Amino acid sequence: MESILKTSRKACPFLYRNSAATLRNLARTPAPVADGGNGLLSMAKKCPIMGKAMAVQSNRYLHSSAPMAQQPTLKLNHASIVNDTSQLPAAIPATHPTETKKKRNEGVCPFHHPPVTHKTNSQSFDYEGLYQEELDKKHKDKSYRYFNNINRLAQKFPRAHTANANEEVTVWCSNDYLGMGRNPTVLETMKQTLSKYGAGAGGTRNIAGNADLHLQLEAGLADLHHKASALVFTSCYVANDAALSTLAAKLPNCVILSDALNHASMIQGIRHSGAKKLIFKHNDLKDLEEKLQTVPTSTPKIIVFESVYSMSGTVGHIEKICDLAKKYGAITFLDEVHAVGMYGPRGAGVAEHLDYELNARHPYGGNGSILDKVDIISGTLGKAYGVVGGYIAGSARLVDMIRSYAPGFIFTTSLPPAVVAGAKASINYLKQSTKEREMQQLNTRSLKAKLAEIDIPVVPNPSHIVPVLVGDAERCKFASDQLLRDYGIYVQSINYPTVPRGQERLRITPTPGHTPEMANYLVDVLESIWSRNGLKRVKDWEAEGGCAGVGTGDLKPAPIWTDEQLRLVHGNLVEKSVTSTSVLAH
Amino acid sequence: MESILKTSRKACPFLYRNSAATLRNLARTPAPVADGGNGLLSMAKKCPIMGKAMAVQSNRYLHSSAPMAQQPTLKLNHASIVNDTSQLPAAIPATHPTETKKKRNEGVCPFHHPPVTHKTNSQSFDYEGLYQEELDKKHKDKSYRYFNNINRLAQKFPRAHTANANEEVTVWCSNDYLGMGRNPTVLETMKQTLSKYGAGAGGTRNIAGNADLHLQLEAGLADLHHKASALVFTSCYVANDAALSTLAAKLPNCVILSDALNHASMIQGIRHSGAKKLIFKHNDLKDLEEKLQTVPTSTPKIIVFESVYSMSGTVGHIEKICDLAKKYGAITFLDEVHAVGMYGPRGAGVAEHLDYELNARHPYGGNGSILDKVDIISGTLGKAYGVVGGYIAGSARLVDMIRSYAPGFIFTTSLPPAVVAGAKASINYLKQSTKEREMQQLNTRSLKAKLAEIDIPVVPNPSHIVPVLVGDAERCKFASDQLLRDYGIYVQSINYPTVPRGQERLRITPTPGHTPEMANYLVDVLESIWSRNGLKRVKDWEAEGGCAGVGTGDLKPAPIWTDEQLRLVHGNLVEKSVTSTSVLAH
Repeated sequence: MESILKTSRKACPFLYRNSAATLRNLARTPAPVADGGNGLLSMAKKCPIMGKAMAVQSNRYLHSSAPMAQQPTLKLNHASIVNDTSQLPAAIPATHPTETKKKRNEGVCPFHHPPVTHKTNSQSFDYEGLYQEELDKKHKDKSYRYFNNINRLAQKFPRAHTANANEEVTVWCSNDYLGMGRNPTVLETMKQTLSKYGAGAGGTRNIAGNADLHLQLEAGLADLHHKASALVFTSCYVANDAALSTLAAKLPNCVILSDALNHASMIQGIRHSGAKKLIFKHNDLKDLEEKLQTVPTSTPKIIVFESVYSMSGTVGHIEKICDLAKKYGAITFLDEVHAVGMYGPRGAGVAEHLDYELNARHPYGGNGSILDKVDIISGTLGKAYGVVGGYIAGSARLVDMIRSYAPGFIFTTSLPPAVVAGAKASINYLKQSTKEREMQQLNTRSLKAKLAEIDIPVVPNPSHIVPVLVGDAERCKFASDQLLRDYGIYVQSINYPTVPRGQERLRITPTPGHTPEMANYLVDVLESIWSRNGLKRVKDWEAEGGCAGVGTGDLKPAPIWTDEQLRLVHGNLVEKSVTSTSVLAH
Repeated sequence: MESILKTSRKACPFLYRNSAATLRNLARTPAPVADGGNGLLSMAKKCPIMGKAMAVQSNRYLHSSAPMAQQPTLKLNHASIVNDTSQLPAAIPATHPTETKKKRNEGVCPFHHPPVTHKTNSQSFDYEGLYQEELDKKHKDKSYRYFNNINRLAQKFPRAHTANANEEVTVWCSNDYLGMGRNPTVLETMKQTLSKYGAGAGGTRNIAGNADLHLQLEAGLADLHHKASALVFTSCYVANDAALSTLAAKLPNCVILSDALNHASMIQGIRHSGAKKLIFKHNDLKDLEEKLQTVPTSTPKIIVFESVYSMSGTVGHIEKICDLAKKYGAITFLDEVHAVGMYGPRGAGVAEHLDYELNARHPYGGNGSILDKVDIISGTLGKAYGVVGGYIAGSARLVDMIRSYAPGFIFTTSLPPAVVAGAKASINYLKQSTKEREMQQLNTRSLKAKLAEIDIPVVPNPSHIVPVLVGDAERCKFASDQLLRDYGIYVQSINYPTVPRGQERLRITPTPGHTPEMANYLVDVLESIWSRNGLKRVKDWEAEGGCAGVGTGDLKPAPIWTDEQLRLVHGNLVEKSVTSTSVLAH
């Protein structure tokens, strides 16, 4: 299909103007068989050139009695028929323009698709040419992204339908880790808020967009993280970018120490601050300390790191990093995006989890827990909390300064009241209920154990992420496509730049909604895909000296959620209160 | 109150730790009279030091029979009582720490409020001190922002309640220009989508967060603006920042020509690109052309400008700027954020409006209208469309390149399905219905005329914004506070850095929901506030040589919506189909 499109694009302005992704989506959009069976062929039938060709071809096949489904793919190529102008309607140009740099944007497409703006100034820069070059680079290094059409069904979590509303698949890679996106309390709260306060905030926080709900949400987040204040942003990408860029720009001669695996949002924030950046090796305390020693104690420093690293599932050494910060006069900025809702007695994240019992008994700031040692925490409302938005929590002055200076906070429409109310309901729910995160952990342990049994390589980690190593961009995407197309399982392939080249993976995220049957089916299918495609097992990686922690012979890290916290004895559940059924019924 | 707080903060760690804004909000939060009448006093009563003092003071007043409401403000000052330790409970420290740099963060607050992280390293940088300095700067130059607590009521649009749910005000400054945030079709669509697809998207567009709704919304936006493709972001702040920074960084040696009044999001995007920037005088074609002439034709250039400038209501010379772009080999980036939904036969903005009849007859790309000349358009789903989110529209390759490279698009959770569905419903509604935007224009004209009659200064402009010039930060905030407190009218004061110093204003935005009675009341109240405070009238500005276009003697620009388009003859409505009542009833 891809090579046919490539040839056809040279002759047809419609194909030329639309990206491969658009065409691919069109080709996947179902249409009546009589119209060609998909959106692309259906549109082609309306084209006076292609339509004519298709009618001829169709007739030929009908006369030969071959069923439609067995017809060879119709070649979308104008080239062979473009000279036969005799049967074209008068209003349509007799030929499609051929591929010349000057003419390629000029064609009038019979589909009413808008032409690319035509530059008559012959000396001007070739903008469209550059865009195409940049896209070609992505295609060439296999990092071009094809979005899958996934429509997650609230009433059938974790099922979704594809572009075809009748075709359902099981989603195994969503960040709605706990299924809070379909929690009845959250949904009902959002609906009621829509009725009462409408669809949007109607303004920035400063101009008509600051409702009591926003203040309540921020108070609840400050309380969650044992901080004096919190501030909500449109996303945690914006929270990280805005907070770090503003803070580091304000601190004179600030130096930022950044974990090598930090998320793009923090990297952007650091870059935008203009501050000096020292990158320390992922989770390497020795390297961090050596870098801290190169900066005078009196110079302001921010150590920027994560609790759960999303693509590897590894976990930052929160307490030790805070101790180093104190020793060298730095402050800490901890991204708990993949941990909030998931760890700790009230779902505040890994920093809260580390003193589980203390924080369960005394859920207040100043109780002496590790949480108190972290200066700034960022989190999201869009993953375990199931809604959308992001935030920071910290001291009152820090938060007030970011509120007062960060353009990314000030100059943007605030989150809709219904989103804010939904997030607030979700946070409050997960402050009380632990069964969702416990069930999630049990399902994670179970899946990791099953994959270990059949030697399928999982990047070792103590968290809820199950990164299955493939180690090759094309094979990873191919495996992901096979899972979806042949088995109705959706696991997105994670390729460069999200992970380093050679460490491509299928990132699996179990939820409380995945039943044992779903998990067994997934494991069987992965076994079959690994065999069919000859993908590397743990022993293969071992033979090569290991990759991304797989096959290196290192000890597997102990899970953050201990057996005791999950009420497990020798791996078995001793208390039956947490079951898939009970969680699904809430 | 402010000076009392200042003194008290030195003695009390609770007051010290919380920002003035937090305390102010607490002081405004209603509480039973017995608890002090507001949240701050109610909390103070729980403090073993203040509580004791309040009980003594309260007793004194009760014995003197003075009603609670008439009691002088209770002074929140520990200093005078802090030495009387005889009656304190044993568990509470006998004294609050006094204000010393070393000790100020150490106090244990009896309210369970978390302490600011304590740095023991005496050589370390004083982070909290810097935050306070930065906040002090804001207080000093009067640019510190106090957020008003405004809860817009969908069923009573444009009314809202304040922090007190029983106290209602009329909102005259929301960007929900057409009241689409409470449109029944939009709200019903969002509720149904919540039920079907849940609260959040559950992932980035690449990983589990790309639903058919997102693709449909983008197709609808591309169609709206007569472009091949569109791309949705979490906000238009992010859209502008991500698109401009990515595009200008990709174009080799790119030069950006930016209107002096461009929005912060574009300024950030340009800054983040690292490209060379030439700022041209606001709406000054001569200056723009002179700057274009300094750059070789073959060098890539982007002219970045807006259609409706939000704070002045002025309108960019779209066609002439596009012609200059063509002449000098530049491309155009047009921000239609304050115009989408508001102008044009289908609500595509000013670029569409300029060829109103043509676009009404042929609502397709390639019809030869001015829309075709604009290369990239950015817009929002959060103002006239009443929801939240932002987008760009442009050529297929341009959009695909931004989709493939912009971190602000790639690495963030996509918009919730319900938000996407709501925005889509709103856009489709306003593609068909023109009565909302027509009524908005009629109400704007009427309000501008009434203010002109009483010589209240409005920054002249041809759009739907009514910027009432005050010209002083303190007076502007004071007038805004008076409007809210004394008259139940909410118009936020707009101060530096949103507008230049000396051009502070009350930015009024009429909607189809504002009745003639509401408008008359607003005008009467403004008259009274102008008189009470001796604010400058048009004649005063004239005497000073004019300011921000007021009193300069220049011809007033003709409104974008013509008399004919609004079916007006000599200022009177000839067709009765558009009335406030009909619009409110939709």
